[in-house]
Order: sequence, then C-alpha cells, then structure tokens
Amino acid sequence: MIPSRLVLDMPPWFSAIPDWDAPRRDDEARMRLAIRLARENVERGTGGPFGAIVVERDTGLVVGAGVNSVVRLNNSAMHAEVLAIMTAQHARGSYTLHGPAVPAHELVTSCEPCAMCLGAALWSGVRRLLCGAAREDANSIQFDEGPVSEKSYRYLEERGVSVTRGVLREEARQVLVEYAERGGQIYNG
Amino acid sequence: MIPSRLVLDMPPWFSAIPDWDAPRRDDEARMRLAIRLARENVERGTGGPFGAIVVERDTGLVVGAGVNSVVRLNNSAMHAEVLAIMTAQHARGSYTLHGPAVPAHELVTSCEPCAMCLGAALWSGVRRLLCGAAREDANSIQFDEGPVSEKSYRYLEERGVSVTRGVLREEARQVLVEYAERGGQIYNG
Repeated sequence: MIPSRLVLDMPPWFSAIPDWDAPRRDDEARMRLAIRLARENVERGTGGPFGAIVVERDTGLVVGAGVNSVVRLNNSAMHAEVLAIMTAQHARGSYTLHGPAVPAHELVTSCEPCAMCLGAALWSGVRRLLCGAAREDANSIQFDEGPVSEKSYRYLEERGVSVTRGVLREEARQVLVEYAERGGQIYNG
Repeated sequence: MIPSRLVLDMPPWFSAIPDWDAPRRDDEARMRLAIRLARENVERGTGGPFGAIVVERDTGLVVGAGVNSVVRLNNSAMHAEVLAIMTAQHARGSYTLHGPAVPAHELVTSCEPCAMCLGAALWSGVRRLLCGAAREDANSIQFDEGPVSEKSYRYLEERGVSVTRGVLREEARQVLVEYAERGGQIYNG
C-alpha cells in the first residue's frame, strides 16, 4: 500500500530563529542567513551542512527556508534548496514564484546546488540563484553533486535565471569543514 | 514566518487502484503501471501526464508511486518521480533504497526524467532507471526537461544505476498527446 500522505516537518529549532521577518537587503545579508541555517543544522545535529532561503528580490523579505533534512526525514530529496522552494511556494499558494503579478524571487543557497536542486531551482520560478560554497568544496568532504556543469548554469541563464556564485564562499565552506571534522554522515545515493 | 510543516497528499483516487499489491514481474508490466498512473492523472484532472513507481527489482513488488502533482499541491518539485521516491523511502523508513541488507530497487517512469528527477533518482539509491516516453516527446508538447544530456545518464551508469529507455514508448507518448489535446496546463518555471 502506498502512503496516502507525507508530512515534512522543519527542524524544531526553526521556529526559534528570532528574525525571520527582518529584510535581508543585500547579497551578503541573504547569504549570511543561508549559512547560519547550515551552521545551526550542523551544531544542533539535525542534518547536513547546507542551508537555503527564498527571498523577494526587491524587499529582501524571506518567504521560504530549508536545511538539509535527508537523514532526519528519511527522504533523499530533502535538500535545503528543495525545502526552501517548497515552503516559499506554500507561503505564496502557487507552484511558481514567477508571474506577471508576482514579485521576483531569489534562491540563496550556502553551497552550489546538486543536479536535483539545480533542476528544482529552474522549475521554481526564481529569477536568480545565489551560491556560497563551490561544488569543489562539497566534493572535498565527499559529497557528490551529480551531473552539473557550466552548461547547466547556462541553461538557467538562457531561461531568465541569473546565477551568482561564490558569495561569502569562505564562510560557507567553513560549515562544510566543521561538519566533516565532527564526523558528520555523508549520504550519497 | 516559515511554515513549520508541509503536508503532501496523494490524489484521492490513488487508494482506489485495486492491485497495488500484485507483483510486476517484467519491465513492461512495471511500465504499464507507471503509464496507467499517468493516464489516470490526466483523465481525473489531477495533474500532468506523468506517472512513476518504485519496485523491488527481484520481486516486482511496488513500494512507492507518484503522479505529477505540481499544480494540485502548488509545489513545483512534485514531479511523479520525486513522489515515487519519497513514498518508497517513507515505506522503507530509510533515506536510501540502497544498502547491504536492502533489496535492489528500480525507478520506473512514464517519461524520461527532467534534470531535477534525474538527480533525485541518483540520490534515491535505486539501482536502475526505466523510462517510457522520450525527452523529445515531452518537448513536443512544450514541457521543458532542463539540462539533461547523454552525459547525465552516463554519470548515473558510472555510479551503478543502469538506465533503460524507450520501454513502451509509444503507449507512454500517447498520454502526453492526450493531455495536450485536452488543453492540459503546461507549467515550466
């Protein structure tokens, strides 16, 4: 029998982040929140070293957020970016964050997306993708990123999703290093 | 405020499929179920023309299933393959369908996966990917598939996920054609 319902809970500490409502006005402020979520996730032992948010481009309001929850939720699709997109679309009541009457949104992720999350970003309707740590930083602690190439990023750009990489890369990379040093679980397919 | 919980319901007709428990012994029987789910989804008006299942390779038992639910659930990540993987992992109580004490699993999808779903297949732990309709068939009714190339499939093969394409392609393609003829919604990013 196939389960008729799936329930996905955010980690319990999520609701204790005190300043969700503060606008993040520039790229660094946005990335700082994504990195903070990644770090909280590691330090509280709720998952892998990845965090992501969705913000309104012009106001900097946070409309979605996620942390890696693969092990916690027994669900290999629960990467930070996927949860950030899902919560943002839930908040907006729409399967796309793009439309004539919709403000532009950005997906801000503490690490360059894997193949799944790059695809998810494309379908989400965000108009911009901001990345912190690089693919090589994830690879260096043995996380596989899947088939992503420069061509993949160009595919997004050609469809109106601009891409900015390396925002606070060193801070973002430090969370990966810390996770590895703690002996954090690496869970590729 | 970020929602603290997301609830994902299968379409109501899902539980009325009478023969979930019957083993699907060969590739065609497996694909026939994936195509049937795609067709039911179109005919009942619950989503796009895509269906997918996860089966145990050796027994043919169905352990997960999904249909495209993007519009119904206001969630652009809810492709058939992602739901099939999520329900299978929920049933197994594990974030991976691969392991020393775990039987091998296959993901069977009525259409070649988009970039997101190809990545999701890689992380899921399935050992084989079976596809019905081709990328070009989806493209011909204006569904974008994202950055997927022959190299993407090779990436999976190199990591132990074998890929078989074109199983009952014509039957699978017919569901796409029927969806387009009904004026079904096309919802790329």
